[in-house]
Amino acid sequence: MTGHSRVRLFTPGPLNTSAAVRDAMQRDIGSRDAEFIRIVRGIRKDLVALSHGGSEYTAVPVQGSGTFAIEAAIGSIVPPGGKLLVLINGAYGRRMGEIARKLGIATETIESPESEPKDPDSVKSLLAAHPEITDVAAVHCETTTGILNPIAEIGRVVSAAGRRFLVDAMSSFGGIDTDVAGWKADCLIASANKCLEGVPGVAFAIVRTATLEISRAHARSVSLDLAAQWDELERSGQFRFTPPTNVMLALAAALDALAREGGVAARGKRYGENQRVLLSGMEAMGFQTILRRELQSPIITAFHFPSDPRFAFEQFCRLLAARDLIIYPGKLSRMDSFRIGSIGQLTLQDFADLLEGIRASLETMGVPLPPGAKSE
Amino acid sequence: MTGHSRVRLFTPGPLNTSAAVRDAMQRDIGSRDAEFIRIVRGIRKDLVALSHGGSEYTAVPVQGSGTFAIEAAIGSIVPPGGKLLVLINGAYGRRMGEIARKLGIATETIESPESEPKDPDSVKSLLAAHPEITDVAAVHCETTTGILNPIAEIGRVVSAAGRRFLVDAMSSFGGIDTDVAGWKADCLIASANKCLEGVPGVAFAIVRTATLEISRAHARSVSLDLAAQWDELERSGQFRFTPPTNVMLALAAALDALAREGGVAARGKRYGENQRVLLSGMEAMGFQTILRRELQSPIITAFHFPSDPRFAFEQFCRLLAARDLIIYPGKLSRMDSFRIGSIGQLTLQDFADLLEGIRASLETMGVPLPPGAKSE
Repeated sequence: MTGHSRVRLFTPGPLNTSAAVRDAMQRDIGSRDAEFIRIVRGIRKDLVALSHGGSEYTAVPVQGSGTFAIEAAIGSIVPPGGKLLVLINGAYGRRMGEIARKLGIATETIESPESEPKDPDSVKSLLAAHPEITDVAAVHCETTTGILNPIAEIGRVVSAAGRRFLVDAMSSFGGIDTDVAGWKADCLIASANKCLEGVPGVAFAIVRTATLEISRAHARSVSLDLAAQWDELERSGQFRFTPPTNVMLALAAALDALAREGGVAARGKRYGENQRVLLSGMEAMGFQTILRRELQSPIITAFHFPSDPRFAFEQFCRLLAARDLIIYPGKLSRMDSFRIGSIGQLTLQDFADLLEGIRASLETMGVPLPPGAKSE
Repeated sequence: MTGHSRVRLFTPGPLNTSAAVRDAMQRDIGSRDAEFIRIVRGIRKDLVALSHGGSEYTAVPVQGSGTFAIEAAIGSIVPPGGKLLVLINGAYGRRMGEIARKLGIATETIESPESEPKDPDSVKSLLAAHPEITDVAAVHCETTTGILNPIAEIGRVVSAAGRRFLVDAMSSFGGIDTDVAGWKADCLIASANKCLEGVPGVAFAIVRTATLEISRAHARSVSLDLAAQWDELERSGQFRFTPPTNVMLALAAALDALAREGGVAARGKRYGENQRVLLSGMEAMGFQTILRRELQSPIITAFHFPSDPRFAFEQFCRLLAARDLIIYPGKLSRMDSFRIGSIGQLTLQDFADLLEGIRASLETMGVPLPPGAKSE
């Protein structure tokens, strides 16, 4: 849309996309068209390769948001009479528990503080004490805080105990290396509009085909049936129900752009550089992160509200939005926080603009800055 | 995508969109942004107005394909312990039955021939004989054949019997007048990428708010929970889970374009003109429609395969596709058919091109044409 200044989205997504990704949506294509079928096949192949899935895994796209694919995975993989253990240290872990309970699946949870990674040993003892647990679900990067959970170690524990393992890699996939096979995961779920830098409207599960094979009668839903979706994609190359064609074209372009950028390592490096600039600027203004530095992923950073009573978060957001700088509130359950994402098509200049916007907004609100933090 | 010739989609959707609709997707917008919230509110208001819902109804968008919104409606409205009667004369009615059964909802069906409209009297007697039925679901325009069911008459019967009424208006909404209040429907479901001429990725339900009020604990799903989605849209103006932002921008542009075209009546007239050209050209080549003329909606037309054994449908599609003319196979359960849609941004010239393509393809296959049907 010409005439619009460029909004910069420092959020966990939807995020800033490249012109190439948006351009890819500029055409009509039939959902049963041979070319579209080729594009979908290419996307699925790329997703498996990105996850280091190898020949034992397949990628199954699901229309909707990431949560839709999470629900499809839980509802399609946990067998009737099964029990799911959900590891929770943030809003997205809690949501997986909520989904399982709503689907009528027996659910166990281990909930621990949002500022601490999950502990594989606690998983080990709980699985030993609960032989009825069939499946375990965990979040790789909890978007609540940006914390990285030790998925490889948890995967070893889950696999050694002979249970299936489902990983929500929504906000990490494409920005941090994921290894679905190495993690001994049966299923990894992510979406197009986070570190892959596509547009929202489709998510996907990368699943062990052997797990899908035995999941054919499990689904609690027609729309969110991963095994049925996989069967149709294998049979005809088509989605069962109208795919978001333009969104898929954007995803194909986004995967091409990721490869051209140098893959996940190069993209993660870019995000890490963005975050370093952000952190040093924020620290200079007296902001404190929720997480200790060593736990922080480069995807998104959660900050405490300043303690000064003149800090008003809604006003802060409005002042930033007036400069086309968009940030999101926190999702922590017990304290006031806000989040700044490092992902998407954002440059170091965008982060410099954000820091200047934050400085000016604090000044407007009358929140004092530490000496030396004022701009000249 | 420049360089691509214009594919013409004579399908039930995804279909040809206008440049304005595709252009609207060309920007990044935050899903919690005040402007996006305004856009979503405008879309919801327009959808209720288009359905003649008035103040008793609200529109609830659902990410995904039309089927996702159908499942959300059935799973959110039919109460625990309720029973759904599904009226079936095509693939989309059958799918509603499949969805209800998969959700564990007790289901009754009335299945009748695909070439005949549903009979309100049979619904009346069945409801009288089955007091345990709480909800009735029917399809307005069955995309299988393009048949129009007598929804107003069925609605009167259902309402007089004191049951709730759910209407799948997927392929009619925006092209044929719908009247959710006049039909005494509790819920009407449609999607962005059919007669509204948006892009695929979002669907919606237009629901009586009183029905949603009592549906809050019904949903069998977190993702597909209409009442929860409505509550959040009313509370914050936001989707509960990442919306397909670009697809929503396209839908807003598509609704503007529909109003500029002169609304549903003008659009339906355009589709009807397309179809008249199609029908007379096809009849001249000896093709027969599945439906009698008076049952035919202007949305999509199903044709019998020619009886000549040299007619090979896959080759036929390939020959047409080589001219960038895309048609879909039929969905009839008992006979060979193919379908040609009249919807989307297609001109009379596009239909002339299609007819010439069909003539040439038959000639290539050696299928004889009636005298006078050959081009000079």
